[in-house]
Amino acid sequence: MDFLEYIESHRDANLNELKEFLRIPSISTKTEHRADIARTARWVADRLREAGFANAEVVPTKLHPLVLADSLEAPGAPTILFYGHYDVQPADPLEFWTSPAFEPAVRDGKLYGRGTADDKGQVHIHLKALEALRKSQGKLPINIKVIIEGEEEVGSVSLWDFVARNKERLKADALVVSDTSMLAPGVPSVTYGLRGLNYYQVEVKGPAQDLHSGTFGGAVPNPITILAEAIAKLHDKNFRVTVPGFYDAVVALSAKERKALRSLPWKESDFRKMVGAPGLCGEKGFSTVERIWCRPTLELNGIWGGYSGEGSKTVIPSKAFAKISTRLVPNQNPAKIAKQVERHIRKLLPKTVHCKFEVLSTGKPWVAPFTHPIFRNAIQALQKGFGKKAVFIREGGSIPFVTQMHDTFKVPCVLIGFGLPDENAHAPDEHILLENYFSGIKSIAIFYSDLAQI
Amino acid sequence: MDFLEYIESHRDANLNELKEFLRIPSISTKTEHRADIARTARWVADRLREAGFANAEVVPTKLHPLVLADSLEAPGAPTILFYGHYDVQPADPLEFWTSPAFEPAVRDGKLYGRGTADDKGQVHIHLKALEALRKSQGKLPINIKVIIEGEEEVGSVSLWDFVARNKERLKADALVVSDTSMLAPGVPSVTYGLRGLNYYQVEVKGPAQDLHSGTFGGAVPNPITILAEAIAKLHDKNFRVTVPGFYDAVVALSAKERKALRSLPWKESDFRKMVGAPGLCGEKGFSTVERIWCRPTLELNGIWGGYSGEGSKTVIPSKAFAKISTRLVPNQNPAKIAKQVERHIRKLLPKTVHCKFEVLSTGKPWVAPFTHPIFRNAIQALQKGFGKKAVFIREGGSIPFVTQMHDTFKVPCVLIGFGLPDENAHAPDEHILLENYFSGIKSIAIFYSDLAQI
Repeated sequence: MDFLEYIESHRDANLNELKEFLRIPSISTKTEHRADIARTARWVADRLREAGFANAEVVPTKLHPLVLADSLEAPGAPTILFYGHYDVQPADPLEFWTSPAFEPAVRDGKLYGRGTADDKGQVHIHLKALEALRKSQGKLPINIKVIIEGEEEVGSVSLWDFVARNKERLKADALVVSDTSMLAPGVPSVTYGLRGLNYYQVEVKGPAQDLHSGTFGGAVPNPITILAEAIAKLHDKNFRVTVPGFYDAVVALSAKERKALRSLPWKESDFRKMVGAPGLCGEKGFSTVERIWCRPTLELNGIWGGYSGEGSKTVIPSKAFAKISTRLVPNQNPAKIAKQVERHIRKLLPKTVHCKFEVLSTGKPWVAPFTHPIFRNAIQALQKGFGKKAVFIREGGSIPFVTQMHDTFKVPCVLIGFGLPDENAHAPDEHILLENYFSGIKSIAIFYSDLAQI
Repeated sequence: MDFLEYIESHRDANLNELKEFLRIPSISTKTEHRADIARTARWVADRLREAGFANAEVVPTKLHPLVLADSLEAPGAPTILFYGHYDVQPADPLEFWTSPAFEPAVRDGKLYGRGTADDKGQVHIHLKALEALRKSQGKLPINIKVIIEGEEEVGSVSLWDFVARNKERLKADALVVSDTSMLAPGVPSVTYGLRGLNYYQVEVKGPAQDLHSGTFGGAVPNPITILAEAIAKLHDKNFRVTVPGFYDAVVALSAKERKALRSLPWKESDFRKMVGAPGLCGEKGFSTVERIWCRPTLELNGIWGGYSGEGSKTVIPSKAFAKISTRLVPNQNPAKIAKQVERHIRKLLPKTVHCKFEVLSTGKPWVAPFTHPIFRNAIQALQKGFGKKAVFIREGGSIPFVTQMHDTFKVPCVLIGFGLPDENAHAPDEHILLENYFSGIKSIAIFYSDLAQI
């Protein structure tokens, strides 16, 4: 039986196994899910062993364990390092899920559940492609190293330590990652650019304690108002970030790339529909695609302070908080940007309040020249697996490991994504198109198989 | 035994009974405390019966019950209507209480617990003063009607209906309320002005659902940023509220009143210390006392949207919310102000978002001319009860019932408060000075006793 037949005959088994994977709430940002994280790591290692990776192991770290395995039985063939992550974002707000986040459910050709797209579903595509190649051919056509982490959603700190101490062990001719999206349904894509991500938390403290807004209102600094006033000054009327120096190192898009982006089969009307807001907005002088893929941004990810319960409470809170992130593009320096953002926010706040500024994580942007033949190979494998034209795209999200690996090993990084922009990664009703999951397994198997002849 | 001896000999018994009152979490804004509210109403009625009000009753309403009682056995003497409330504010944030909110505790001459000052402690002062008069003299020296409600912290809706339907039953020569503060420790005070209160909730909705801030950031309306930008425009650089028409009906302070306010034994340095912020701020051209007592304000009481948990979540939320209140002064019209605030906020928001604006409650301001002899009587009773000089003050908070009663019955309203500005009403570690509680019982007994000769 050839591997494509094997894959076809295991559709139901694969889907059921993926559901099992999705049921474990491996939320890395919440300490209460530590045991779930550990259980997920063991689950992944077990699946790798079943796929023939006899040495699959769970490697403890200071936070969440790594899963490692390799198969080096194809002398002369290239060595690929496959990276993925088994941790997921929190599921809240829980009340907006149509079916519970950790009880995967199929509706209208889509599989719903936290992690379906980001990134358990995509990791599973590789596990099943490798299993199909091994089971149908006795051995893998290429050499492959697998590293699957549990800290992607919280900054991949342990992974970076591990990579620095295990360069020889992880060395490969190319890195392959599936943690991105396709441009649109029916348009398989290879991603050649990602934005970097810095994440901050700001605390503004006015009064030493909560005060009655009748007894004190009108004469004391209200931290909510003051935080809002600072936030309001972070963008100008052209939606440019006002942090001094923020754009200094940004590399301008070439006319050639802008043209290529414009010619992609991407529809602004689809994007509008997906967002569902009464209108769009963004930096003046750039198209929507450029704004989300190629331009740096500053976004508010959370705000809280005072009373948020039922009814009314006439309080002036002591503190108000915001979670803020900046997405970065070449050649912005994350450490430098973090300092500039902190300095700017502190400058915007009046002397009537205290400010605590924390940098929760930093991460570099990445753009590949995609001249290496492996990129062409990836496009062809996708076209065979999906039976449709594949394209090169960039993406607005961040995968710190890609940058790290690229900087460490100086090898091509090939990002083949099977999610979709409206898949709701990080939001309620996250899902993956079943067609993309099944065609993904085929495409990856073809990709690894064809790489033997590269 | 005269009533002052009776009061002195019941110090411990009174304090213990007050603690019992405070232990019931009668939080009117939260539906889960409905049973506690009902229990508190019964508790108050039982205490009134013990003080000789045989007809004390719990009157059900659409929301929380009223407690009613009267004693009309002093022909020729004036009739007083005493008003108080047995409901309290929520206790959150719970983690900032030194001892639990509903486990009253004495430290450094202060009794701590939710409701100690606002308003259970002050209601209890009257219950015990009336009990002392009755128990030591066999009957009360004046006619008195008692109404104690359970909706003060949520807008007193049922009370207003009740008053409209029971004017004859509630009719009196004067209204007495103890739900305010003294100017400072050792300065017993009669309050002649209160601000009105309008409370609003704003919901800003951008995207139809939460979005990934990597995939979408930079091209979609972020409701947190947009809400913050609107909030930032609600005050100008002189800290004046920018709502068009907001100040139109405001009556200017007379030179005489400004002078009287300036001569009060009130120290800005004490206020600064109490607030504990690095600095103060407020409307240009007015003193701190004027800002908190006599000027209208707009305050943010709560804000929330996106992720506020541990660590980071890269989300652009669909919605962001704010709770906003305006304090009003004569002759601002609450309904008109509510419309102006809504119109202004809607105007400040861009067309890229939806806005839901709710008016949770409205309330008129009140200022008394204090020419009626009962005000002089109150000052003298306080001076006897405390052994200290008493003063006339205004206050920044709101007691909707005072305005309502004043408008309905056109009788003097005498506000005698035993709280303190730093008592943390509506905040963690709410407390009352034991000295004020004990001297308060004496002062009120003297006040009621002396009124017989008015």
